[in-house]
Amino acid sequence: MRYGFGIDLGGTTVKLAFFEENGTCLSKWEISTDKTDNGSRILSDIATSVTAYLEENQVCREDVLGIGIGVPGSVDLYGVVFNCINLGWGKKDVPRELGDLTGLPVACGNDATMAALGECWQGAGNENMIFVTLGTGVGGGIVCDGKIVAGVHGAGGEIGHIPLCPDDPIPCNCGKHGCAEQYLSATGIVRLAREALSLPHEASVLDSGELSAKRIFDAGREKDTLATAVLDRYFELMGRFLGTLCCTVDPDVIVLGGGVSKAGQILLDGALAPMQKYAFAPCRTTRLALATLGNDAGIYGTFKLALQKFG
Amino acid sequence: MRYGFGIDLGGTTVKLAFFEENGTCLSKWEISTDKTDNGSRILSDIATSVTAYLEENQVCREDVLGIGIGVPGSVDLYGVVFNCINLGWGKKDVPRELGDLTGLPVACGNDATMAALGECWQGAGNENMIFVTLGTGVGGGIVCDGKIVAGVHGAGGEIGHIPLCPDDPIPCNCGKHGCAEQYLSATGIVRLAREALSLPHEASVLDSGELSAKRIFDAGREKDTLATAVLDRYFELMGRFLGTLCCTVDPDVIVLGGGVSKAGQILLDGALAPMQKYAFAPCRTTRLALATLGNDAGIYGTFKLALQKFG
Repeated sequence: MRYGFGIDLGGTTVKLAFFEENGTCLSKWEISTDKTDNGSRILSDIATSVTAYLEENQVCREDVLGIGIGVPGSVDLYGVVFNCINLGWGKKDVPRELGDLTGLPVACGNDATMAALGECWQGAGNENMIFVTLGTGVGGGIVCDGKIVAGVHGAGGEIGHIPLCPDDPIPCNCGKHGCAEQYLSATGIVRLAREALSLPHEASVLDSGELSAKRIFDAGREKDTLATAVLDRYFELMGRFLGTLCCTVDPDVIVLGGGVSKAGQILLDGALAPMQKYAFAPCRTTRLALATLGNDAGIYGTFKLALQKFG
Repeated sequence: MRYGFGIDLGGTTVKLAFFEENGTCLSKWEISTDKTDNGSRILSDIATSVTAYLEENQVCREDVLGIGIGVPGSVDLYGVVFNCINLGWGKKDVPRELGDLTGLPVACGNDATMAALGECWQGAGNENMIFVTLGTGVGGGIVCDGKIVAGVHGAGGEIGHIPLCPDDPIPCNCGKHGCAEQYLSATGIVRLAREALSLPHEASVLDSGELSAKRIFDAGREKDTLATAVLDRYFELMGRFLGTLCCTVDPDVIVLGGGVSKAGQILLDGALAPMQKYAFAPCRTTRLALATLGNDAGIYGTFKLALQKFG
């Protein structure tokens, strides 16, 4: 039996896991992400944790096929990071540096793409899928025939920046205007509600209290008129977005994850018909599903990447 | 040395070619496409032509690795055609039927996708590219790491049906509204010109004579005010379209082919800045190029598919 590590490097914590090559997770733990000094100690902290695990559990290094690691930034085809603003990193050759520190082969990918690979392998997806994370922003990962579409500049699956409403005067965090994530993220749906509330409208439960994606979906379930109109607009834009993806890579299933996906069935029910309206006819049977691995998608995906490269 | 066939099945003619496995085209010829009787004789005509070539040239069947064939319709992951309206075909298992008729292994793909694979292999593209055909309609093919993205329902690369202007009251041929091909095809740019001519405008060389994509680009080169405004609108929509593709699969190069691409440098120069405006920052260095194989892209691509499957 051979083994490997899956590591999900986030801005606050690093999730680490040790797997059997059949996908069984034997152990998982976290260490904190030390972002001081431009994140210069992050990789050595990870190497220390990996080495300690192998020693404590008397795992022979020859039985370890390698390490997969996901980082919150653009990663090129060779696993070299372009930049991770959250970590203070500029260009960084993670496979070489972490490989030198651990003596193990290392493969590196973008975190959203790794989560996609995790859902593909052990979650709600399959070998032809798109994973859409609807969180503070909108990220994604595309899997075709079981392989991730990383993109030449590490921007494969950066679907949150598809231009949906280019005439929008409000800029996206990325500097462009009208990106999908300006409407479809948790922040985006709150913005749509705020806009609706600023216009004349009948009394709504959203008139008072802090707005959140959860409250808007809850109000929609209760047939609140304003919330229903906001969700109609949200689903219309979601339909154009998902329809665009269907006309491009034509997946079997689109898996929705991230905080907004906790809305559950109402999200699937609301997005399906608009997606079918905007998809090209042969792909109108494309399925929509909710992610099932939650925060563990990254560790499964990174280990799977290591398996693909070194297994 | 082994050999194979690349076959591009069109609505009027079938282009056939015989290749060495290194990509040298030894011979190419055409037969007409017999669409009578719902195209029931097309595959047997092709088989007859293939068999005759092998006999006339005394090629041993064991030295032939197989046949690749491209068809004008949706093709699934197994090479089974969903439908080819132009040929009168419904569902058709081309690999099995043509395989039985010739005794050779057969791989089948969509024609635009096959042209993409041809440009990838022997033309202006490379292993990470998108091919965009700007003809009567807009088609495309996506190549990631040298493999085509065929799509689960054969709709991978059906980028002409990305919804760009969903509020357009005029429907696309596919039944949807505001598809990219309604603006970016040869027909689309004529439509944009017709709309501009219907509004008050200063005198233009396009006021008389039949409109065509060629005349509009020619007038733009001569700084005709109306043509320049039409091309500005065309390039703005092209930029949104190409920027969307960059945010999704992040290719190294986007290759423009089809009749409109004969406009040449003015097309590349006009589309580049809008594409960069709408692309996600890391992929703003994505290149635009003109296709170089012309009508031969299909035969190169289909032979390459046969090589990938049987070589």
